[in-house]
Amino acid sequence: MRDSRTNSAADPPPTFGADLHLELRGPGLRAGLTDALREAVRTGRLAPGSRLPASRSLAADLGVSRNTVVESYAELVAEGWLTAQQGSGTRVATRVEPHRAAPDARRTRPDEHLPRYDLVTGAPDLANFPRTQWLTAARRALTAAPNSAFGYGDARGRIELRTALADYLTRARGVYASPERIVICSGFHHGLALMAQALRARRVRAVAVEAYGLGLYRDLLANAGLHTPPLYVDEHGARIDDLARRGVGAVLLTPAHQYPTGVALSPERRTAAVDWARATGGLILEDDYDGEFRYDRQPVGALQGLDPQRVVYFGSASKSLAPGVRLGWMVLPEELIPEIVAAKGHGDYMTSALEQLMLAEFIASGAYDRHVRSMRLRYRRRRDQLVAVLRQRAPGIRVAGMAAGLQTVLDLPRGTESSVVQAAARQGLAIRGLSQFRYEVADCGWQLPERDALVVNYAAPSDSAWPGALDALCSVMP
Amino acid sequence: MRDSRTNSAADPPPTFGADLHLELRGPGLRAGLTDALREAVRTGRLAPGSRLPASRSLAADLGVSRNTVVESYAELVAEGWLTAQQGSGTRVATRVEPHRAAPDARRTRPDEHLPRYDLVTGAPDLANFPRTQWLTAARRALTAAPNSAFGYGDARGRIELRTALADYLTRARGVYASPERIVICSGFHHGLALMAQALRARRVRAVAVEAYGLGLYRDLLANAGLHTPPLYVDEHGARIDDLARRGVGAVLLTPAHQYPTGVALSPERRTAAVDWARATGGLILEDDYDGEFRYDRQPVGALQGLDPQRVVYFGSASKSLAPGVRLGWMVLPEELIPEIVAAKGHGDYMTSALEQLMLAEFIASGAYDRHVRSMRLRYRRRRDQLVAVLRQRAPGIRVAGMAAGLQTVLDLPRGTESSVVQAAARQGLAIRGLSQFRYEVADCGWQLPERDALVVNYAAPSDSAWPGALDALCSVMP
Repeated sequence: MRDSRTNSAADPPPTFGADLHLELRGPGLRAGLTDALREAVRTGRLAPGSRLPASRSLAADLGVSRNTVVESYAELVAEGWLTAQQGSGTRVATRVEPHRAAPDARRTRPDEHLPRYDLVTGAPDLANFPRTQWLTAARRALTAAPNSAFGYGDARGRIELRTALADYLTRARGVYASPERIVICSGFHHGLALMAQALRARRVRAVAVEAYGLGLYRDLLANAGLHTPPLYVDEHGARIDDLARRGVGAVLLTPAHQYPTGVALSPERRTAAVDWARATGGLILEDDYDGEFRYDRQPVGALQGLDPQRVVYFGSASKSLAPGVRLGWMVLPEELIPEIVAAKGHGDYMTSALEQLMLAEFIASGAYDRHVRSMRLRYRRRRDQLVAVLRQRAPGIRVAGMAAGLQTVLDLPRGTESSVVQAAARQGLAIRGLSQFRYEVADCGWQLPERDALVVNYAAPSDSAWPGALDALCSVMP
Repeated sequence: MRDSRTNSAADPPPTFGADLHLELRGPGLRAGLTDALREAVRTGRLAPGSRLPASRSLAADLGVSRNTVVESYAELVAEGWLTAQQGSGTRVATRVEPHRAAPDARRTRPDEHLPRYDLVTGAPDLANFPRTQWLTAARRALTAAPNSAFGYGDARGRIELRTALADYLTRARGVYASPERIVICSGFHHGLALMAQALRARRVRAVAVEAYGLGLYRDLLANAGLHTPPLYVDEHGARIDDLARRGVGAVLLTPAHQYPTGVALSPERRTAAVDWARATGGLILEDDYDGEFRYDRQPVGALQGLDPQRVVYFGSASKSLAPGVRLGWMVLPEELIPEIVAAKGHGDYMTSALEQLMLAEFIASGAYDRHVRSMRLRYRRRRDQLVAVLRQRAPGIRVAGMAAGLQTVLDLPRGTESSVVQAAARQGLAIRGLSQFRYEVADCGWQLPERDALVVNYAAPSDSAWPGALDALCSVMP
């Protein structure tokens, strides 16, 4: 992959007019704008070389302060997505298109023009997707499927997959699960959208979320018409005692491994959360996004086991296998099932039946367990390398939240986060500061402490890219 | 498959209490209730043998007239889903579970307990799904996929599939298509949901629909907060001149083959529709659900070709391949693409990347064309058999809307529709009357003419079931 972010003189870059359509929704304006712009560049909607509107005019278009736009642009220049040059304004970084032999030439793959090293994307190591075993599962599933599997399906999803998952989740995650309690969806995003619809139909008006987290899911809830007051997050996880004051109908938590700070919700707070739900009739939405990946301690079982009537458990194949397999699952209190089925339109109009059968086969054959075990060893090795190399080359840096999962947090000296992110971009290393995940609102009555840190998704690089990514990371440590 | 709809004395049936949760949304109450109940039985949510609430109490719960409930129950008794016995109330029909050898015993497949012959389900012949060729495409796609294909994807869908579809749609359906104008979705239901979201964001308040059609899509639009005034349908298709009076922002049409009456939108009305859209800035949503299947005339090209800036073209693999492959596509006016991308959450969180690659490979290899051609011959043969056998055994019956597609309409003598549907159910034949698809509202200023007819989806039965289905159908003709 080549790294060429200078504009080519031979090919004058297109300019970009006033029609820069960006969806900025919910609170957290700067992070939202940065995300929307990054996504527009990543997906090619903003073409390489095209000029962005002047910060003043974009700010006016969007109704935000000019400073918000300036900061967003600076962040993306730092990450390598944009370039800023005197006299030429802010532009999308130009990258050379890889030339290919004839028949495939039309199939441009925009994802290949990313920064050299990617420690941002919340995906597992895609180079190790078990292609051969997945194909075996596909063959078996396609051979064994009843004809009816090719038709319109049950809104709850294929019974074969729900059966396989009930076994797996009970065994591996301590979930109180049976096929009847499971509804299949196309990943966590889809499951949360269904839940938001069901909550709205119940007249719930607000869902509390953690003060560190992904704007994507807050936006999803906000778009469904739900308020999203934040819960303070400390070293024991989200502060549950804040819940009572919030008057919310539900709370979205990452109990096993807070995203992205990496702490586990303490046993006291797990109990407190369930007590809150019982006392108020509220629901806990448990996002168990990476529960399979534990390294240094016994697995933290699912919170859902404490009270399957008050906790909705969400899992997916996105971290354990790959996001390209669009499969997720919800384990629901019985009373919620008809509401989720209604939100789905009483049929399975979203999730591939064949892919469901493939995953059922993949789990039932033991391939899923083997894959998770093998990836766990791999990720653990990477994490150990990260810790060891940092200890040697940057002994002052504290590594946090590293007992589990695919990401860790590196605490930096005060005031250095933004310059480190920028230095990394100059090395071709895309990485995000922890501040990108902060979520505070004006009236929440507290403030998260200042914390300069990097969120390192050490799972994303391929095995061959990892040493280079690690080296680049160390080279920019203060 | 056994047909046993009497209650077993050995196994006392469960009773069903007041918690019968049904989603009845939008207008068309009786059809909506019938659909919801049928779906609840079909999916097993209402267990075999369970007792339904008394009509009076369900009517009160739902806020509908008792007559609506009585008629819905009668319809479903007629179709064989429910039984009504003196003294025991209305119950879900009991069917014997097929016993299976050990390891698979847990995998109950509720879809296998349907009526013996199904001429209702809007699916193609699933027994002829091209399993071998699909597996070949899966192998090629899995082998060739770049690692990035397993990650989070572009909201517009995989470029490989958009490229293959642009070629195909231009060639086969006269669509003005390029990869940049295509957005992949998980079938028409998903595409329409995204469009409804985008229309709402544009402050559109109403989308006109055809006065014959599926309640499912009207409900989807209504749930998105859109009004759905009906357009009168005659032998030239939907009456476009009604549009101007409606003040709608969009209209949903099935121009190539009106569903379910089977007529094609006349050339004059196609032009009128585009004129309306240009004059008002409205959008035409073209549901080309079965455009590939034409028998007796030149294909009717997509309406979208007339004005790609005012028509949104929707297609899917549901009729051409199978609904279990959850893939659809929208060809969009350029200006709408960012709005659809925003409705999707700026990423592909719904549609399997691997299945997209499989279909891309399936189309590019020519297997899609071959499959469509072979199925067209098959369906045409079935249609010819249907016409020939009916001419012999029921010479008074007119067969309408049969030039294309997977369904046809049999016109019956006045006043016989409901008794024919009931007689069919007694033969184990599930079929729906045309009245189930009617959609009128109080203030529309016209009434559809009385029309007793059956909608025959002759594509759904397998080759082995087809002769029996045809025989059962003839035997109940008046």
